Amino acid sequence: VRLVRKARNSPVPETITQIPLMYQGASDSFLAPTDPLNLIEDAHGLDLEAEVGVILGRTPCGTKAKKARDYVRLVVLINDVSLRGLIPDELARGFGFLQGKPPSAFAPVAITPDELHDAWKDSRVHLPLNSEINGELFGNPDASQMHFGFDELIEFACYTRDLAAGTILGSGTVSNEGGNVGYSCIVEKRMEEIIASGTAKTPFLKEGDQVRIWMEQAGKSIFGEINQTVKKFICR
Amino acid sequence: VRLVRKARNSPVPETITQIPLMYQGASDSFLAPTDPLNLIEDAHGLDLEAEVGVILGRTPCGTKAKKARDYVRLVVLINDVSLRGLIPDELARGFGFLQGKPPSAFAPVAITPDELHDAWKDSRVHLPLNSEINGELFGNPDASQMHFGFDELIEFACYTRDLAAGTILGSGTVSNEGGNVGYSCIVEKRMEEIIASGTAKTPFLKEGDQVRIWMEQAGKSIFGEINQTVKKFICR
Repeated sequence: VRLVRKARNSPVPETITQIPLMYQGASDSFLAPTDPLNLIEDAHGLDLEAEVGVILGRTPCGTKAKKARDYVRLVVLINDVSLRGLIPDELARGFGFLQGKPPSAFAPVAITPDELHDAWKDSRVHLPLNSEINGELFGNPDASQMHFGFDELIEFACYTRDLAAGTILGSGTVSNEGGNVGYSCIVEKRMEEIIASGTAKTPFLKEGDQVRIWMEQAGKSIFGEINQTVKKFICR
Repeated sequence: VRLVRKARNSPVPETITQIPLMYQGASDSFLAPTDPLNLIEDAHGLDLEAEVGVILGRTPCGTKAKKARDYVRLVVLINDVSLRGLIPDELARGFGFLQGKPPSAFAPVAITPDELHDAWKDSRVHLPLNSEINGELFGNPDASQMHFGFDELIEFACYTRDLAAGTILGSGTVSNEGGNVGYSCIVEKRMEEIIASGTAKTPFLKEGDQVRIWMEQAGKSIFGEINQTVKKFICR
């Protein structure tokens, strides 16, 4: 709730703790782990969003949370790229994100939940998610702090339709209440800066910036890493 | 604008004539032309939305309207099914439609634009789109009355990303200003009834109702027909 309130730069629905805020993203193309992050204009406010995701088997319409966990086939890491300059207007129009959400990038390895051992619990991943910008740690919040577990998110998503095998469901940007664990997206840090001092100091991503996202268990990387460099993109 | 204002049951963005109201729909599954229309609960307010759509070749990020028309490969008819009982809350939350938009159905034949001869003009289809409910004509408005042509819709959709080959873009429900041409969705008729008499009289679709959608040129059906019967659906 805290992150959403800050990051939206727009009123938060009163129902946020009862009804998942879930959007339908593009699935026609995804970025490889080392693909460039395309920057068309600085004003677009290019931002990372580090999150975990699950890939589902075919999930029948009306599946309840208790049963939904059985349809989680794979766990993945996602950079759910956002263009912060475009999102507030899209939220205001009510039809959801389109221009504000270019393709997402995935870490190279998808794993079955059992590979996480004890860290897969309550349909959540109980491990820190690390993000780095230009070689400096940007955040390592615990990915298990989701208001709704993946089981509840699946129940919500399949309420009026089957979900095809291969459906990808993201956790939303990882963010922790309290602690000094940093961030998984720039806009959250900027909003904290505004609250603290009146001005956002951390810029959005610019040409040449490098973003790394990875997760470790017992000192070893689980998914490999997302490692993307921002590249100026000339549209045609 | 008129239809959107009525059908949303929610304030219309001020930018509606400058910025397309476009949402990102599910693409994991589509309905065949004669598949049943699943009704889970009457309170969901099952509605047809008859519209034309285009299927694109790969369209590069940043393509402008003038060039965009070259990427239209096929024209199709769509029943962009809506659940009116769920949509107002989804609009209010700002993240777009998810539960309110179960899979869409398509007419059996997709055609190349040249098959429409003079009826394909200004990136619009200049022909009436016929809808029938239970054997009675429900509407036959002119499908060319789009505020934005497909060329402009493509420019909007590819502003920050490539569109993969096979991308489907819908016109939005066909609706005409003026004339006595009926409707392409029930909610528009209901809103006119409310404006005229204070009460909506036309019910949303119920078990056993039959919906037909088709388009003719020189007395011949172009796309074949969408012909769906509403079936009570028991979720698991």
